[in-house]
Amino acid sequence: MGSNDRTVGSLGEFRLIDLIAARLPQGEQVLIGPGDDAAVLRAGDGRVVATTDVLAEGKHFRRAWSSAYDVGRKAAAQSLADVAAMGARPTALLIGLVLPAELPADWPLELADGLRDECARVGASVVGGDLVRDERITIAVAAFGDLGGHDPVTRHGARPGDAVAVAGRLGWSAAGLALLERGTAHRTPAADAVIGAHCRPRPPYDLALCAADAGATALIDVSDGLLQDLGHIATASGVAIDLESTALLPDPELLEVAASVGAEPMSWVLTGGEDHAFAACLPGPDIPVGWRRVGRVTQGADVTVDGREFSGTGGFDHFRTL
Amino acid sequence: MGSNDRTVGSLGEFRLIDLIAARLPQGEQVLIGPGDDAAVLRAGDGRVVATTDVLAEGKHFRRAWSSAYDVGRKAAAQSLADVAAMGARPTALLIGLVLPAELPADWPLELADGLRDECARVGASVVGGDLVRDERITIAVAAFGDLGGHDPVTRHGARPGDAVAVAGRLGWSAAGLALLERGTAHRTPAADAVIGAHCRPRPPYDLALCAADAGATALIDVSDGLLQDLGHIATASGVAIDLESTALLPDPELLEVAASVGAEPMSWVLTGGEDHAFAACLPGPDIPVGWRRVGRVTQGADVTVDGREFSGTGGFDHFRTL
Repeated sequence: MGSNDRTVGSLGEFRLIDLIAARLPQGEQVLIGPGDDAAVLRAGDGRVVATTDVLAEGKHFRRAWSSAYDVGRKAAAQSLADVAAMGARPTALLIGLVLPAELPADWPLELADGLRDECARVGASVVGGDLVRDERITIAVAAFGDLGGHDPVTRHGARPGDAVAVAGRLGWSAAGLALLERGTAHRTPAADAVIGAHCRPRPPYDLALCAADAGATALIDVSDGLLQDLGHIATASGVAIDLESTALLPDPELLEVAASVGAEPMSWVLTGGEDHAFAACLPGPDIPVGWRRVGRVTQGADVTVDGREFSGTGGFDHFRTL
Repeated sequence: MGSNDRTVGSLGEFRLIDLIAARLPQGEQVLIGPGDDAAVLRAGDGRVVATTDVLAEGKHFRRAWSSAYDVGRKAAAQSLADVAAMGARPTALLIGLVLPAELPADWPLELADGLRDECARVGASVVGGDLVRDERITIAVAAFGDLGGHDPVTRHGARPGDAVAVAGRLGWSAAGLALLERGTAHRTPAADAVIGAHCRPRPPYDLALCAADAGATALIDVSDGLLQDLGHIATASGVAIDLESTALLPDPELLEVAASVGAEPMSWVLTGGEDHAFAACLPGPDIPVGWRRVGRVTQGADVTVDGREFSGTGGFDHFRTL
């Protein structure tokens, strides 16, 4: 994959862009891909879903902890999950990259591989971007999706009586971050699993689309922590949500890691961010396969656990979506 | 608009996002605007045009030279021009903002006003974004557009015999930058005009759409300098382009400023970036109103001026679009 003495600066932007673009296959949704003033995508539904996220080195990832490939996977996952959380199938990403001149050129190439592979999980393509040299790595991702004729699922539709359900892992990323911050030398399989979950979240995109198909009244990407993100639904919908702690018992890996570092695993489950699980409110008696019921929507205005306010630490507030 | 002792950090992301979103009217193309996991836009054409650009403080703007409002105008203009250069009407922007905690909160609010007002020139809306705190200001803009049933106009269609035409200013931004870099204290009307053009480019979006309607075979946003951007068309189309220097005589303002600083105004016209003029190749005998004929497409592979290679300085290479 190229020699290590090549840097972003020595390679030059044009050459680097050519090398990146060569790694990015273009799917059938792409009418015009990289290389012009703009890309052109199919939007057969007559609407397009669009969202953006910014990842800053030191805030959202550290090169000491995550490979460029993992950062690419995570950067793509974060925005693709936002698209899926509207009930839309992701189709494409645009990538704005700020890179230091002295960065090895392999770093953005491996980043591109990570972006590509995460996109491949949902059939999306990286269709263009922009490249700027500056001192710190910053990655801006814009993601697009197709609703396929369905209504978008917002945060506004939850109604008292709906079930609250979750798909995907909760608390794993927070547990992995806790281990990385401690610099734990002794690695167990559980430690490796949660660190892996932190560096490379795996949002269950298809399950989000299943929930939309099943008539979800509200759907959200759990990026800031379950309580906080359900709070967005409660506020937007004008409802309360009560969770059942027995339905949210930490996975065995979390229990093991929590014991090893003296942490409270339930806090990770309820307030840990960046797992990119999905939370939905569902009106029907049935919960789609792959989802688990964790609570219910009631009248009121708060998010509670077993009827009481949870007193653990709060969710992430590193960044927000408008 | 608010007291000066408020900072991005003291206000907090949620409050700042609310204040920004309150300044952003949502047009009829917007089905879901700020406040959910993603925005939803109309794409009645069944396709969507999408592009992204990143602006970094110190590279693309300086707070000493440009107000936040001007930075917003420029950030929007840069990406809206890319959309128009595909022959599409811009519909929406997403904004990824990296802001230092100590930045006065009015800065992003005035930035939002600038983004909003530049969008208003074409009927587009700022439909969402993301906010991250970090040491330096970085602005990532993703822009979208609607082709309205027309084919996109790429860089690939120029044919020998086509006229080459330009709409918009050339060299003004480069002249303004030259003055700002010299720190000229004595301001003449011409100096103010070119400095204004640098800080707040005014792409003639509607003229780009007119060229597309008139059957332009190739269309590009002049962001890196006329010679370099026409070089992209020549390469993509497999043609040569010859410009006529008599059709590209510098405007009087450029002559005056060039004389005052001992610069060569023709270099600004041919290689100056960031004016966001448009260049088109047109097959018909007629040139649309507002455009001026500046050369012709021939067989070959180079961009020349009066049949010769231009020997001035090169265009911008701060950043590139994939």
